[in-house]
Parts: sequence; C-alpha cells; structure tokens
Amino acid sequence: MNEGLAAPSTAAIVAIGSEMLGPLRQDTNSLWLTARLEDVGIPVVRKSIVGDDPARIREELDDASRAAAIVFTTGGLGPTADDMTVAVAAEWLGARLRRNEAFLTKMRERFSRRGFAMPVCNEKQADFIEGAEVLENPRGTAPGFWARREGVELVLLPGVPSEMKELMEKHVLPVLARRNEGKVGRRRVLRIAGMGESAVEEMVAPIYAKWKDDPVTILASPGEVQLHLATRGRPAEADGRLAAMEEDFRAVLGDRIFGQDAEDLPVVVGELLRRKGKTVALAESCTGGLVSSLLTDVPGSSAYFLGSVVSYANSAKSDLLDVSPETLAAHGAVSAEAAREMAEGARRRFDADMAVSITGIAGPDGGSPEKPVGTVFFALAERGAGGSGKKRLFVGDRGVIRRASAIHALEMLRRRLAGIGGAA
Amino acid sequence: MNEGLAAPSTAAIVAIGSEMLGPLRQDTNSLWLTARLEDVGIPVVRKSIVGDDPARIREELDDASRAAAIVFTTGGLGPTADDMTVAVAAEWLGARLRRNEAFLTKMRERFSRRGFAMPVCNEKQADFIEGAEVLENPRGTAPGFWARREGVELVLLPGVPSEMKELMEKHVLPVLARRNEGKVGRRRVLRIAGMGESAVEEMVAPIYAKWKDDPVTILASPGEVQLHLATRGRPAEADGRLAAMEEDFRAVLGDRIFGQDAEDLPVVVGELLRRKGKTVALAESCTGGLVSSLLTDVPGSSAYFLGSVVSYANSAKSDLLDVSPETLAAHGAVSAEAAREMAEGARRRFDADMAVSITGIAGPDGGSPEKPVGTVFFALAERGAGGSGKKRLFVGDRGVIRRASAIHALEMLRRRLAGIGGAA
Repeated sequence: MNEGLAAPSTAAIVAIGSEMLGPLRQDTNSLWLTARLEDVGIPVVRKSIVGDDPARIREELDDASRAAAIVFTTGGLGPTADDMTVAVAAEWLGARLRRNEAFLTKMRERFSRRGFAMPVCNEKQADFIEGAEVLENPRGTAPGFWARREGVELVLLPGVPSEMKELMEKHVLPVLARRNEGKVGRRRVLRIAGMGESAVEEMVAPIYAKWKDDPVTILASPGEVQLHLATRGRPAEADGRLAAMEEDFRAVLGDRIFGQDAEDLPVVVGELLRRKGKTVALAESCTGGLVSSLLTDVPGSSAYFLGSVVSYANSAKSDLLDVSPETLAAHGAVSAEAAREMAEGARRRFDADMAVSITGIAGPDGGSPEKPVGTVFFALAERGAGGSGKKRLFVGDRGVIRRASAIHALEMLRRRLAGIGGAA
Repeated sequence: MNEGLAAPSTAAIVAIGSEMLGPLRQDTNSLWLTARLEDVGIPVVRKSIVGDDPARIREELDDASRAAAIVFTTGGLGPTADDMTVAVAAEWLGARLRRNEAFLTKMRERFSRRGFAMPVCNEKQADFIEGAEVLENPRGTAPGFWARREGVELVLLPGVPSEMKELMEKHVLPVLARRNEGKVGRRRVLRIAGMGESAVEEMVAPIYAKWKDDPVTILASPGEVQLHLATRGRPAEADGRLAAMEEDFRAVLGDRIFGQDAEDLPVVVGELLRRKGKTVALAESCTGGLVSSLLTDVPGSSAYFLGSVVSYANSAKSDLLDVSPETLAAHGAVSAEAAREMAEGARRRFDADMAVSITGIAGPDGGSPEKPVGTVFFALAERGAGGSGKKRLFVGDRGVIRRASAIHALEMLRRRLAGIGGAA
C-alpha cells in the first residue's frame, strides 16, 4: 500500500527510549538505518532521541515531520508499560487502534509452544493502527507499521536491532528502492587486517586526492582498517564511478584486502577453509577463546572448525597441548617456542589440517621489560609441514590487545590458505 | 552573568555536524554531557543531531527550546565555512555579532607563536554574540557562548570532546550546581540473568507503580534484563529515595540480581571464584569459546580460570573430554548425558574445582522436531560432587542463542558459587 508514491527526498530518525537519554546506552540503530537509506538514495537530515513520554514523543513526531519527508521511529513497540509508540503514533496520525484477534491468537500460540502462558501485557501488541500497513516481524511479537499523514510518511520499527533490520530489509527498503527510480547511493567498504591506520593512509594518499569529490573515509578498529568509498548518482553512473574508485584502491592495496562490505574476516577464513577442504583447530592463551568464538559465530562453521583448547593455566598447556615442561621452564609460556608447540599440539590433538596458536600478555599485569604488555607470539602448524611463528607488539588496553591478536591470528590463517607470502 | 537564576528543570542537547548524520560517526559527546547534567540534577529529555545547514539548525533550536529549559549545542564553532553555529544562534537569539579586537589579537599571537600566520577564515571566531557570556576555551581558538531568549537558555559548546568537557567543567557545571542549590541526580542499575523481560516486569509491576514519579526503565538484551532506577533531589534526599527504591526492587527480585551498575556477570562470577578460592574450567560446544572469552576479558582472570575445551567435533568431545562414544551414539552430542560427561571431563582434565558445559543447537541448521534450534543443555560439575544439568530453549538467531547460552552458563556458576538454590 506504500508502493507507487514519489520517493521521499529526506528522512528523519527518531529513537524512542528513556534508556538512550541516560549516560549508558547509545542509539546505534540509526547508523545502520542511515547506511541503508543512503543505498536507496534517501539522505538522513535529522536524528533525535526522546524518552518514553507521550507528550515528548508527540512533539518529536511534529518536529521530525517538519524536517523530513519520511520519519522512522525505533523502539517502544514492546509489551511493557513504557512501550507507547503505537498508541502515541496512532493519536498523532488521527487513526484508531483496533485489536487484531487473529494476530493475538498467533501470539498466544507462540508463547504456548515455548511452554508459557502469554502475559496480559503482551496483548496490546495485537493493537493495530487502522489504515497503516502492518510490517510483520517474524523474530519478535511486535509488528511495525507504515502510515501517512499530510504528505509525511511514518514508519514505526522495533528497537531490537535484528528485528528492526529484518523489517526494513523485507518490507521497507525494497519498496523505497522501487519508488526512487532515480538516484542511488553506492558504498564499498574495503577491509584490511595486519596493518596500522597510518600505514594504510600512506599507501592510499595519492588516490585519496584523485577522488576528492567523493567521500572516502578511513576507519580503524583493533586489528582492522576499513576504507569506505561512497558515491551517488543514477545507478549506472554511480556504479561506474564506484568501480573505478575501487579499482584504484585495490591496485595499491592488493592482497592486503581480506574482504569487502560486510565480509568479516572469520567468514572469509571459513570460506577459504571450506573451498580448500581443510579443517582447523586452535590453541588460545591470551585471547582466551575469542578466536574460537569469532570463527564459530559463522553459521556452518562446524564443517571446518574442529575445536580449540583455551590453555590459560600452564598445566593445561602441557596436559592438553603437549607443550614440554622444559620449553615452559626455559622460555616461558609467552615465547615463540611455546607458541610453536601449542600449535603443533592442537593440530595433533584435534587431528586437524591446520592449527594456529596465540600466547601473549594482554595486561594490565604480567608485563616485563623484555616482554611488555602487548607482546604476543603466534604460530601456525600444518599437517605434514613444520610450524612457523611470529611475534607482534600491540598497543592498547586488554580488550584492544585481545581483539588485535585475534584478528592477527585469523589473518595468518587467511594468508596461508590463500597462498599469500610475507608477514600477515 | 548566568549566576543567580533558577535552575533549568530540563535540558536538550543538539549535536551539529553533517558527519554525524552519515553511517560512520556517532555523537558521543551527549553521553558525557548527560551524565554530568544528571549529576547537577538536570535531566536530559531530548537529544538530536543535525547537519551543517542554517535552516535545519534554526529549526532545531526552535524545537529543542520548546522541549527543554536549557539547550546545549555541540559543534560548528570552528573556522571553516561549514561551521555556522554562532551566526545562526545569534540570529535566532535576535542578537548582533560584534568582532572582539582584543580576542582577535590574542588569536593572532597564538598562531604566530606556533610559527604560522592566522588564516583569514579564523577571524570569524572573534565574532562574539552581544549579550552572551563568552566561555573561554583554553585548548582551542573557538570560545563557547551562554545566552538566553524568552526564558530559554542556550549554551554553545565546541564539538571537540576535550574542549567541550573543559568548558563545561570550568564555566557551566559549577554555575548550574550553585543555581540548583545542590540538587543532584542519582541512578542505579540492577542486573538480572536467567529471566525474560516479561517475567521480570510481572514481578516488579506493583513496585513499578509505587515509584511511578521516578523513572524506572526495563532493558533487555540476550540473557540479561536491566532495571534502571533514577531519581533526583538534594543529595541526602535523592540518596535516600534511591536507596528506598532499590530496597523495594531487591526485596522482590532478591538473588535474581547478579550485580549493579557496571558490574558485568563475568566480573561478578570472577569475584566469587576469587573469594571462594575456587578454580573453573569449561567445555563449550555451541557457544564455541564465547563463555571463555567473556571470563578472560576480565583482568586477573588467570587467578581462577584454568582453561576450556571448545569441542565442536564429536571426536574432540571423546578425545579431549572423555565423553563416551556410547553416550554420543545413544543420546547425541546435544543431550543432558553428553553435557554431564563434558562438564565432568573438563573438570578432571583441567583439575579444576568446578566446570560448566554447554552443548546445543545455535542454528540456523541442525534443528529437529525433538531438538529445535535454540535447544541447549548445560551441566555443572564440582570436585567431589556429582554433576547437575538443565535444558533451556532460547528464541532468536544464532548470535542471540549463543549469547543467551553464555550468560546462562555464567549465571549457573554464579548461583552455585553464591549458594543459591533453584534453577538459574
């Protein structure tokens, strides 16, 4: 029912929830929403956050609808007393709420399948806004709504990120894309591991200058650097320009790029393992299970990931990974020698084709002049081949060092699997 | 000049800058501002972000000043063409801009000390808003301003976080604290694991009603529910009321509460392990190292965490955790029996005082009618005591199921360590 209209020229996002007005929680939905709206050529001109207060929500709908042609709200669709978006929006739209009995039945069934009686407070989630399109939410109970008032469109989305995204992808973005036959935004993210931000910046500086009319942004997180290329125009034109930009950047960065857009390193590594028919195991010390957790976040990872030993105690390094007590005594648990034996032990114990080990000092304690906090040793063992190792020094707090170490271990795996020489 | 007035009852924050409307940058100044304003008893009721567009900034000042008694802007005080906050605000206030020659001379001197001639574009930073208090900025060139229009106060702050904070600490917060005769905001977060949002809501509904004048917010994330209690008043009064609120909620929720404020569950579990002098090991299957990673995120966790086996492959369950092939054949790897043997195996292999195991189906594949996606078995083994297990069914995608399972495993540990009976 929201098909066929002219495309909205501008969007506003209103995040609803008192918790986001406190000092602890940030609205992050709007970042994702902004990127996806850019894809369909609709710039976000205003973002705001209000608490669970009917008067303030109403005011905010007034304000946002003056600033933009389409207003997205996130949050306040849940069952609790402070979830009031639907009621306030209906009033603002001048529409009535009507309880949908079929939906109520479905909700009750969902609860009873899990062995619960549906709490009474959930009933209001079956109150639908008359005249609005109902955006079905397969993940949660709360549906979204898409309505209009005096030329302004209003889309009510859940606050839970996975639900919000699914509703947008399924019910909203395809319609907006069709309606906006003209301009689109195009964005490409090139992702690099094993290099620092300034090293990447130095490599790309000349190309950066060449494409100065299109925004290129460099973003760094522990262990990873991202280049965001963006452009806008009619599809063919925007695609062409983006492709030319990407070609320039790839020519300089080459196999430093491990993936693009949403391709995470664990997904890329998993794909390579699957394609080569190889299995992998891990021996983790300072990363404490983080590398395993990243690899197994990927659906289907059981096809190539056999398991890992998180050997925090030295005795576990000996008992479960066969690191020799002599090695530990002579070189310490944080050493190239221990890393090599850990990788070989994990490979053998899991009977895996490859194994990577990580042992280091994540801090804040445990550093020494010879091995300061941030010192991490890595090794990679392969069936029928010797292990190889390396040492890195990462700068940052415990979380940064652990994260950078985990990405580094995955990048070692990627480079070996892809047959790329040189250091990770 | 802004001393001696009544304290503003509510605040709004407007972040100005087109970069914060893209998908990459977040406004983070507002979190700090919110916390510090709460400390002086002024709640933030609205936050918004607009681009560098005079019409939109003007509209935003209108909207924000309707919602709150004092409006803070951040950003747009710099020297470049897209820094236009001062000019727009002056117009909105109906005040003139007057160039301050003494300040201009100081700016020129600052540049020349660093060996530069001041660019012409910087001159506009010496344009002061007539009638406004000038908030000197020792770190940058751009001063802030504090003005009034029809009972609404407007404070213009720089966007650079260090400069914004210094101006607030030096020139704004002490004045607001004095005007507020010592009224303060107080906040307490109560954190609960192992219960759903609606179940918590049902338990606290009567108290919720009792404290309806003070905002209580319920927040859910996979495996955890948070209650945010907030109040304000004179310090003794606010502390007293918050303590009374907290007592009421604790009376109902009791030992369901695992921690408060920033106390994460892995920290609480670690503290209990340390206090009881116990060590722990893990056997993880569907969580794939996530529980280990959460526990070892905590500095000093090597004092009680010995390690874990992530047994993704069935052979790893047998070889490294001594799960009997008969058990796997008869009941499957996702079963109460396998969970019990995994926990016992991990406890023995690591010679730990306690061990927890997690085995389940995180999806998206692998579910069956008897064991649908989300089915997870847990077991806890202790030195000199038998294992105990339980089964849970979590709803959500792979990430949600893994996260909820990890929190559940940690909550099992917490309850056992704290000597709490009943199901986690």
